[in-house]
Amino acid sequence: MAQDEQAIRRAIDLWMKATAAGDVDTVLTLVTEDVVFMVAGQEPFGKDAFAKGMHNMAGQFRVNGTVEIEEIAVLGDWAYSRTHVTVLMEPLSGAPLVHRSGLVMAIWRKGPADTWRIARDANITA
Amino acid sequence: MAQDEQAIRRAIDLWMKATAAGDVDTVLTLVTEDVVFMVAGQEPFGKDAFAKGMHNMAGQFRVNGTVEIEEIAVLGDWAYSRTHVTVLMEPLSGAPLVHRSGLVMAIWRKGPADTWRIARDANITA
Repeated sequence: MAQDEQAIRRAIDLWMKATAAGDVDTVLTLVTEDVVFMVAGQEPFGKDAFAKGMHNMAGQFRVNGTVEIEEIAVLGDWAYSRTHVTVLMEPLSGAPLVHRSGLVMAIWRKGPADTWRIARDANITA
Repeated sequence: MAQDEQAIRRAIDLWMKATAAGDVDTVLTLVTEDVVFMVAGQEPFGKDAFAKGMHNMAGQFRVNGTVEIEEIAVLGDWAYSRTHVTVLMEPLSGAPLVHRSGLVMAIWRKGPADTWRIARDANITA
C-alpha cells in the first residue's frame, strides 16, 4: 500500500515536471487509453482530445505548476487522489500571465509493472 | 457486481427524490461520516457543512432534479460514479427559477447490510 502511494506521488510529480517541460508524450504515459477528463463547461473528453489540448498548450505557453496532495487512497488495483493544483501559464507571445487554481479528484488504475495511470479526472477550477 | 450497481442506482434515485422532498435526513443517510464534497470556489467541506447547506436550500427552494448516469464502476467495496445532474431550484419567495447543471464524480463505499454511501464527491457545475 505504502509503495503504491509512493508510486502515485511519483506519477503526480512526473506529470507536473513533464507539463512544465512541454513533454506531452511523457504526460500521455500517465493516463489510461480509456481515460475520461471532466472540466467545467465541456462534455467529458478522452485521451485524443486531451493530447490535442496539451500540444496546443505546449505550443503557446510556458507552464509552471505546483500541486498539493490532500489525499491518496489505494483500493487494491485502484486508487483515488485529491489534489489542489495551481498553474501559472506564461504566454510565449508575451501576453499577460494566466493563473489557474483548483481541486482535482482523479481515479487511478494499476497497470503492468506496478505503473499507476489516471483513468478518470474531475477538474474543479475556481 | 450487478447487484452493487443496482444498489448504487437506487441510492442515486433516493438522493434525488429526498432532495426534491426537502428530506435532508434521508439524504444524509447516503453519505459517509467522513465524506468530502468538492465544489468550485470553496474549500472542500464535510458532512456538517453539507447538512447545513441542504437545510438552507430546503428552507428556500423547491428543488427538482434529474440525473443521467454516465458510468458506475464497482471495485470491490468501493465504487465510483459519473453522472450529469440538472437541477431546477424554485425559490419559495417567488423569485426567478435558478437552473444548475453539471458533472459529478463520486466515490462510494460499501457499508453494513450492503448499503452504499458517498465518501467523496466532486461537483463540476457548468
